[in-house]
Amino acid sequence: MEAVDAILAGQYPAKEHAKRVVEYIKKTHPDASGVLYLEGQKTCMIEDNDEAAPFRQRRYFYYLTGCDLPDAYFTYDIASGKSTLFIPPIDAESVIWSGLPVSPSEALELYDVDHVQTADTVASYLAKPSQGTVYAINNQVSDHITFLQFASTDLMLLKEAIEECRVIKDAYEIGLIKKANLISTIAHTAVLKAVKHAKNERELEGVFIEKCIANEAREQAYHSIVASGTAAATLHYQKNYQNLEGKLNLLLDAGGEYKMYASDITRTFPISGRFSTESRLLYDIVMKMQVDTIAMLKAGVVWDDVHLTAHKIAIDCLLALGILSGDKNEILKARTSVAFFPHGLGHYLGMDTHDTGGHPDYEDKDTMFRYLRVRGKLPAGSIITVEPGIYFCRFIIEPYLKDPAHSKFINVDVLDKYWEVGGVRIEDNVLITDDGHENLTTAVKDVDEMLALINST
Amino acid sequence: MEAVDAILAGQYPAKEHAKRVVEYIKKTHPDASGVLYLEGQKTCMIEDNDEAAPFRQRRYFYYLTGCDLPDAYFTYDIASGKSTLFIPPIDAESVIWSGLPVSPSEALELYDVDHVQTADTVASYLAKPSQGTVYAINNQVSDHITFLQFASTDLMLLKEAIEECRVIKDAYEIGLIKKANLISTIAHTAVLKAVKHAKNERELEGVFIEKCIANEAREQAYHSIVASGTAAATLHYQKNYQNLEGKLNLLLDAGGEYKMYASDITRTFPISGRFSTESRLLYDIVMKMQVDTIAMLKAGVVWDDVHLTAHKIAIDCLLALGILSGDKNEILKARTSVAFFPHGLGHYLGMDTHDTGGHPDYEDKDTMFRYLRVRGKLPAGSIITVEPGIYFCRFIIEPYLKDPAHSKFINVDVLDKYWEVGGVRIEDNVLITDDGHENLTTAVKDVDEMLALINST
Repeated sequence: MEAVDAILAGQYPAKEHAKRVVEYIKKTHPDASGVLYLEGQKTCMIEDNDEAAPFRQRRYFYYLTGCDLPDAYFTYDIASGKSTLFIPPIDAESVIWSGLPVSPSEALELYDVDHVQTADTVASYLAKPSQGTVYAINNQVSDHITFLQFASTDLMLLKEAIEECRVIKDAYEIGLIKKANLISTIAHTAVLKAVKHAKNERELEGVFIEKCIANEAREQAYHSIVASGTAAATLHYQKNYQNLEGKLNLLLDAGGEYKMYASDITRTFPISGRFSTESRLLYDIVMKMQVDTIAMLKAGVVWDDVHLTAHKIAIDCLLALGILSGDKNEILKARTSVAFFPHGLGHYLGMDTHDTGGHPDYEDKDTMFRYLRVRGKLPAGSIITVEPGIYFCRFIIEPYLKDPAHSKFINVDVLDKYWEVGGVRIEDNVLITDDGHENLTTAVKDVDEMLALINST
Repeated sequence: MEAVDAILAGQYPAKEHAKRVVEYIKKTHPDASGVLYLEGQKTCMIEDNDEAAPFRQRRYFYYLTGCDLPDAYFTYDIASGKSTLFIPPIDAESVIWSGLPVSPSEALELYDVDHVQTADTVASYLAKPSQGTVYAINNQVSDHITFLQFASTDLMLLKEAIEECRVIKDAYEIGLIKKANLISTIAHTAVLKAVKHAKNERELEGVFIEKCIANEAREQAYHSIVASGTAAATLHYQKNYQNLEGKLNLLLDAGGEYKMYASDITRTFPISGRFSTESRLLYDIVMKMQVDTIAMLKAGVVWDDVHLTAHKIAIDCLLALGILSGDKNEILKARTSVAFFPHGLGHYLGMDTHDTGGHPDYEDKDTMFRYLRVRGKLPAGSIITVEPGIYFCRFIIEPYLKDPAHSKFINVDVLDKYWEVGGVRIEDNVLITDDGHENLTTAVKDVDEMLALINST
């Protein structure tokens, strides 16, 4: 943790991000001049209620400011390279209830920007005569803001530029995701230690969230999946309220968020502290899918190929188990393995759990690639989840059993022994480097270590 | 817990609520006929993200349906007294990821309604010829819904009717709030046991939330206030990230939500397990304010009078401490005690933490009553928080010290000994009955019991 904390002792590199975004714009618009304009998320009330809804900073805004305040604004002058952050002014009524807000001088210390003003000056600031273009994001410009003084307005390019720049993480961002991973590791470990004596999924969700909050991850990166037994076959299971009694395994897909940056970690383990024969066989298959695909990772690798490799390993292993039978090339061609591994191998990870810049094709006619959230080459500095899984989900598999093109490859008798396993997924967060990769996830996944933790209590 | 669970084993009394709402409408519109129409909250995506935002059911809808599903609709025919719930139909794509949704026959078992149909039929259902009025809520009617077949449309009265009916809780609702209180008591107790060894406010927030989730309160009723030391003087402190070292007390204002119903509990206790002299004096004053005002409660009591009594006790006690000096009637008339007790004594509690029907007057020129969220008589069946507090907040008190009309009553030398205490608040949830009241809050507040719990670890 100390090494990561040292990196994070510095400032979030907002200015560098702004420069990269301008470089991206200049690739297609070499003469670009004018201003980048962004608004942070607004305070929003719960409907029919006098309390504010949970606040989630707008990611585009954070990327160029590192500022987590609600109701803030930002401009970046392309010619001078100077940025200005506009933060909420003091509201006398609010001070009584909530204390003093961040002051402009404090904000100048906190955030990597050149100037700080109060938000009541942003409209007049933009009304100064200008020659260039204002680059902003469609539907993210307040009603009281006008761009009349600018020669032109571009509401498309800035969003694209930020989304593409976000793919490649700098050292600070990698530090943030490492920190999110370290916190989530504490939480995953606590669940391993609690699972044997817990009665219900919700107790384990409680343990996970507690450890995240206690260790500075106030927000979860996504709604956790705490799925016992066959619930693990429901890919987006979020009920998290079922009893554990009589269930084989727990699939825990949960990750804390640290200063806007996500972790996304899945582990699957036996509730009793002992894998059933089928569960262990499945675990080893999914582990092989993960180890072998992670081994392929380095800058320039095509993610579609990695995903395809995962399917090939799945087919080999399901043939060995006897769930599948037939020619492995024919099975691959028929896409029968999609019945057991229906989702993509992984997605970019960053400020969003499913981060920007992956260019998926959800209309792809090839079922094997339809849900793959990243297509094409992985650049150095990108962070991707590697999350193979094998599931026994009746809603997904039964249509395959009714289709002769697939059913001829599936041995129902063998399959019947596996429904109870539900599903196994193992998910890590991996940084792509020029000559390889770095797995940022430290949560235990080695079977013996996992079982030792479960049985330690 | 068992007695409450027995009450809650039945169904949420949605039909009774609908009848009461119609009765309310008929008080001013005796010939009311037609249909009540309500929409549940819609699934809403996180901005620029492919995940759904946290779901919070619309309270008006829940009150008449007991249904926690997103994207549902409801009609109630005034003449026949028959209700129809419209729930989302099966979406083939969604089943693959999330499993089967609640079916109409399951919904008929789960919810106290007469008919269940799928939501794709609601528009055509409303297009049937009708003679009466459709009562709906302004801005809570979807674009695809039209009321062309109705003789008239009333978009105001239904909301008012539900808000007023919600004030008086039935046995089931009281059970829900008791259950929320019981769960929060477990969580408050866990914090008491953890406080002595915790290093940071966030650890205690983590413990509180863990216990709520583990015990079926997945949502918090409101953002918890975990305020150590002088942070307790910030009434809406929500940062919850400060170190505990060197701080005197912790003010914990936190409550879980159980099936839409809130609890709202505050306790203040010494982090070390031992009150400082000033802290203990303050605690006893606030306790007296609470005990004496709760003793006044029964149906028909005017909440303004109870609030005034709390101020009178505060003045007496602050005179005794020496923080105030002068004539108690003059001090009351000057409203100087508002400097130390700036908020209202309490608010209705229900599906919203600050529940409906309180008729506050935030424009009241009398500072003592401006923030009182309930005005007038308390009816039997209402549930109100009783939450007196004394705070030493510089932002609030300093203007009083500069105003001769107040400063003449305040002894700064004595006051200076109390800044470090921050603030003390004690808050319970109290049911008003015909001949008295019932305190629904079981969390420990007796000093000796609190200290024993803190020192038990």
